[in-house]
Amino acid sequence: MSRVVKLAVIPGDGIGPEVIAEAEKVLDAVTESAEVTFEKTRFSLGAARYLETGDTLTDEDLAAVASHDAILLGAVGGMPGDPRLKDANIERGLLLKLRFALDHYVNLRPSVLYPGAPGPLAEPGEIDFVVVREGTEGPYVGNGGSIRTGTPHEIANETSVNTAFGIERVVRFAFAQAEKRRNKLTLVHKTNVLVHAGGMWKRIVDEVASEHPDVAVDYLHVDAATIFLVTNPGRFDVIVTDNLFGDILTDLAGAVTGGIGLAASGNINPDGAFPSMFEPVHGSAPDIAGQQIADPTAAILSVALLLDHLELSDEARRVTRAAREDIEARDGSARTTAQVGDAITARLRA
Amino acid sequence: MSRVVKLAVIPGDGIGPEVIAEAEKVLDAVTESAEVTFEKTRFSLGAARYLETGDTLTDEDLAAVASHDAILLGAVGGMPGDPRLKDANIERGLLLKLRFALDHYVNLRPSVLYPGAPGPLAEPGEIDFVVVREGTEGPYVGNGGSIRTGTPHEIANETSVNTAFGIERVVRFAFAQAEKRRNKLTLVHKTNVLVHAGGMWKRIVDEVASEHPDVAVDYLHVDAATIFLVTNPGRFDVIVTDNLFGDILTDLAGAVTGGIGLAASGNINPDGAFPSMFEPVHGSAPDIAGQQIADPTAAILSVALLLDHLELSDEARRVTRAAREDIEARDGSARTTAQVGDAITARLRA
Ligand SMILES: CC(C)[C@H](C(=O)O)[C@@H](O)C(=O)O
Ligand SMILES: CC(C)[C@H](C(=O)O)[C@@H](O)C(=O)O
Repeated sequence: MSRVVKLAVIPGDGIGPEVIAEAEKVLDAVTESAEVTFEKTRFSLGAARYLETGDTLTDEDLAAVASHDAILLGAVGGMPGDPRLKDANIERGLLLKLRFALDHYVNLRPSVLYPGAPGPLAEPGEIDFVVVREGTEGPYVGNGGSIRTGTPHEIANETSVNTAFGIERVVRFAFAQAEKRRNKLTLVHKTNVLVHAGGMWKRIVDEVASEHPDVAVDYLHVDAATIFLVTNPGRFDVIVTDNLFGDILTDLAGAVTGGIGLAASGNINPDGAFPSMFEPVHGSAPDIAGQQIADPTAAILSVALLLDHLELSDEARRVTRAAREDIEARDGSARTTAQVGDAITARLRA
Repeated sequence: MSRVVKLAVIPGDGIGPEVIAEAEKVLDAVTESAEVTFEKTRFSLGAARYLETGDTLTDEDLAAVASHDAILLGAVGGMPGDPRLKDANIERGLLLKLRFALDHYVNLRPSVLYPGAPGPLAEPGEIDFVVVREGTEGPYVGNGGSIRTGTPHEIANETSVNTAFGIERVVRFAFAQAEKRRNKLTLVHKTNVLVHAGGMWKRIVDEVASEHPDVAVDYLHVDAATIFLVTNPGRFDVIVTDNLFGDILTDLAGAVTGGIGLAASGNINPDGAFPSMFEPVHGSAPDIAGQQIADPTAAILSVALLLDHLELSDEARRVTRAAREDIEARDGSARTTAQVGDAITARLRA
């Protein structure tokens, strides 16, 4: 009897549905002869749904999504400045709500410069690292507020909340990654300014490091880390960092490795208590939606992360290889979103 | 009678004294025939002083520094990991204390790619923008703490404090800069996550923008801004942003414009109630201290910002031009710190 994986698919807004269509194509192709069947449920969530119904993510939506084994998400978010979305915050109400409710404490973002990928750096060298971004704490907790709002006397606070529990589990995950890779881990924070949160991160990394003498550990302030990402990205193997610093570093890392059209990510609950969620790092890009010009590679590489998470390692490797070969073969001529998906699917089957 | 400027000089630690020696050389040369005399007071502050006396910045130090018209600072901070500095936080206790006590609410950081400067980007294009970083609020206020510290149940919070008063004044400064430049202003924040602080920044920028219809205004999330800094830095004219985002963006901007060996900054109190402070963006780099290999250009360009602030615009222009010519003439052969300072001084006199 073949294994059944219940997959929630959230195509979302903008280019989301276009790139997800290609990701599904690839997923279907790579699993057609495998000992696994994906049972997909499609969820209509995002700005479009909000405009129709006024709902962002209801309790019922959340329960239904959570009853799956894994989630594949395209991108969510409407046209910036759309007055009808003024009171909606689709990012917080949907994307971040899912990450927090499903305890996605690892936000895993690999950065690889594939041969042939066009990057902005003159001498990029070899780039192959992974950012382990904390996903459920830090300045993302929504612990902010304001008084005298809208007046010249307004005060707005935002509190970053950090727990030893939350940091230790993500740090342990990062060390395990380093041991599967090149045994190097870099903590990125801003310990000289955020002394309490930063001090705790440093202490816990030092403690866990003593259990992993094989892993070389160093530390960089976040500002210095951005310098190294453009002058010597090859120095990185595993970066572990907080939610906000990870957000910033992974967009930059995506840019130096050929653009966020190639950057994949997994929002992972390693304990398996909740389904993990895989999504391209890029957004919904409503300005180019429906034109079939978005690159589906990031969504397709997110499928590889999904397969890897489900321990379908062979399938994961095949998807990554097909995408990599496609990137290498690019000659700059324009292809539609579907053509890229078809080309990668064809390489998979070859 | 010639104008007298009382200048506090804080060479600091590591390479600080070396680069400040060259900055002073240039300052002396450019003012030797000017209608202005700099009366310098040297302050021994930093990690070295702390190790000697246990003091970082006493009330007397602060009062003495504050009684000057302006401050020139090299860099402060000891060797990372020095156990004798474990309980000192020279950055917070000295550098940030000065910025806060002297109400340096504008942290002005120009980014220019000078012809000849080696940058990491393959196709940098023309880069000439300025970051107006807020200097007295945000996550830098030191409003953090922890409970159950050092235990598995530790919780550490860091609160970003933001006021309409603080934002409006720095935003007004940024619009004035844009009007002196190319009439373009980009707000960088993370409004989709830090909704209260970000919302207030957005509201105030919109309000001030309505008084400046000549300035084109746009908005970027901080993660997206890092992408543009490496893929299209030419799109920026004036960036206005909060203290932490400004810290991150200016190190990255320094890297893409030839390295932080060239990046200058001014910590400015535009009201003139307190002396402004000028310093290279780089740190004390204790690992290369005393070797005469540090590039003093950032310190020298900080002198240009100092002169500009003192409305000695001709002198400022001459220093910038001499540094620019020196950068253009570089052929990659090694020069000592003093040789670079001498070369720029010679160009000044030519
Ligand atoms: C859309 C936004 C809330 C999100 C984040 O900040 O995490 C995005 O930038 C990302 O990196 O996935
Ligand atoms: C040394 C440190 C506190 C400082 C900062 O974070 O502001 C530095 O990085 C800078 O940018 O001047």
